[in-house]
Amino acid sequence: MRVLGVDPGLTRCGVGVVEGVPGRPCTLVAYYVVYTDPGDDLPLRLLHLDRSLTDLVAEHRPDAVAVERVFSQHNVRTVMGTAQASGIAVLAGARAGLPVQTYTPSEVKAAITGSGQADKAQMTTMVTRLLRLPEPPKPADAADALALAICHVWRGGTRSKLAAAADRARRGGAR
Amino acid sequence: MRVLGVDPGLTRCGVGVVEGVPGRPCTLVAYYVVYTDPGDDLPLRLLHLDRSLTDLVAEHRPDAVAVERVFSQHNVRTVMGTAQASGIAVLAGARAGLPVQTYTPSEVKAAITGSGQADKAQMTTMVTRLLRLPEPPKPADAADALALAICHVWRGGTRSKLAAAADRARRGGAR
Repeated sequence: MRVLGVDPGLTRCGVGVVEGVPGRPCTLVAYYVVYTDPGDDLPLRLLHLDRSLTDLVAEHRPDAVAVERVFSQHNVRTVMGTAQASGIAVLAGARAGLPVQTYTPSEVKAAITGSGQADKAQMTTMVTRLLRLPEPPKPADAADALALAICHVWRGGTRSKLAAAADRARRGGAR
Repeated sequence: MRVLGVDPGLTRCGVGVVEGVPGRPCTLVAYYVVYTDPGDDLPLRLLHLDRSLTDLVAEHRPDAVAVERVFSQHNVRTVMGTAQASGIAVLAGARAGLPVQTYTPSEVKAAITGSGQADKAQMTTMVTRLLRLPEPPKPADAADALALAICHVWRGGTRSKLAAAADRARRGGAR
């Protein structure tokens, strides 16, 4: 299956496309970073992000889209823009009629390195190794997006039943 | 001018359309609340919200869209959904080629009641009076969206230069 992963951000949004099947090494298809200018107005920035992601989905025709889930514990200064960017990313996949799955950073880290606490350098090293790249993805923002895509392939296109059940329980409790 | 105001929310998103000119009472065109089911998956919810807002913009052909600005100080449990919904709302206006302006809750309250600290009941009372409605908008979620639209008409389609300058300074300082 081909998966397009998105590491959402308003100023820098990482996009990574990989192909593979669960339990085997994935193949790199492409990666990108979509930039928007912090000096521009918000509508223009969101529009540029929406068009870029929609174009990349149309170009690569993935079977699914995987987006990093944003938490409010993140950097408060940038979290609102990140949340808006993640909404645009999820929408870009949904509008193309594709299944869209969100993953927490720990889920991705655990899938790629075996530890939910892995740091950025470790993640980049593993993504480079797993995709058998001659050198780390540049810019580095793309590595997280590639990790998301690999994570989704390895999960066989679904989050673990345990994670999904925990999520349902959490949502149920919060309602 | 005709303005479509959006009070963003993932579960309940208020939409209000008014017509008017600065300094004179506005006329109600229509108001709505777009609901999405908290039990549905996020992609489906964002897709429903996007389609509903896009349809309402196409139906009412406003001259501008006004969206409430979301702050991370809001309710942490719902703020991520609210931020995503606000991104979708801003995008819906931008994709239609319309100017989109965001306002803080205090700016809207000050424009409508003269006080940035006005409570919800006071806002609903003033919106009802300003639009000469026989009774308060129901559901109440629509009142805030109508207030946003009125605020934008009265501002003459632009935020005050003071607010815009303060914003630029804040953004500049945070970069």
